[in-house]
Amino acid sequence: MQKATIHFIGILESEITKLADAPKIYTESDKRGTLEIYPRYQAGIEGIKAGQTIIVLFWLHQADREILKVYPRGDVSRGLHGVFATRSPMRPNPIAISELEVLAVRDNRIDVSGLDILDGTPIVDIKKKI
Amino acid sequence: MQKATIHFIGILESEITKLADAPKIYTESDKRGTLEIYPRYQAGIEGIKAGQTIIVLFWLHQADREILKVYPRGDVSRGLHGVFATRSPMRPNPIAISELEVLAVRDNRIDVSGLDILDGTPIVDIKKKI
Repeated sequence: MQKATIHFIGILESEITKLADAPKIYTESDKRGTLEIYPRYQAGIEGIKAGQTIIVLFWLHQADREILKVYPRGDVSRGLHGVFATRSPMRPNPIAISELEVLAVRDNRIDVSGLDILDGTPIVDIKKKI
Repeated sequence: MQKATIHFIGILESEITKLADAPKIYTESDKRGTLEIYPRYQAGIEGIKAGQTIIVLFWLHQADREILKVYPRGDVSRGLHGVFATRSPMRPNPIAISELEVLAVRDNRIDVSGLDILDGTPIVDIKKKI
């Protein structure tokens, strides 16, 4: 088994519409947006409530998947690192992990705060925070 | 864009060979194993060192991807929850997130502790812990 297919469960509406506006790391962000879950997956969000912290996996569809070495945070003085030793969006499988605060749940839409992800990014998974 | 293809970057050798032996959550585990990274991705692990904590994403290839409601931790008294409100391995895209301690790095192999994942599970990604 060498590969698998991800089926996106929804799409992000974010107030971040340009890369230049994106915080480098979610822990530094108060940006807001909405996780729009596709109706066929809506049953899966039952139990998610305002005030919770959730773990959300996004598919960074604009990332370059061929790059294996990067300058962390673009800082050349730190030297090249393997992408797996960093949080760079560039990586063979460009999945981002964010911890987001739930502001409200409205049918198949989850309003969140703490985003570092661009508007229109596909959603892969949502998990309870341990 | 409704789906994407994941290419596995390696495979896990774990002392957990039966589901019955797997801790429910990695925070409760001292199980050991080795992340065997495929040679074509080896450049990506440069910079990972013994003593670090890394975030590892696994593809739970035995999970049922059609299930949207589960009893958390198998406890019927808690009622059915949407899978996205839980850490259940059952979910449309069965990706697990583990935080693992690096014991040693030997060429394309990373020895780790803290596993809750079965032997033979494909590896999707490795990230630095924030």
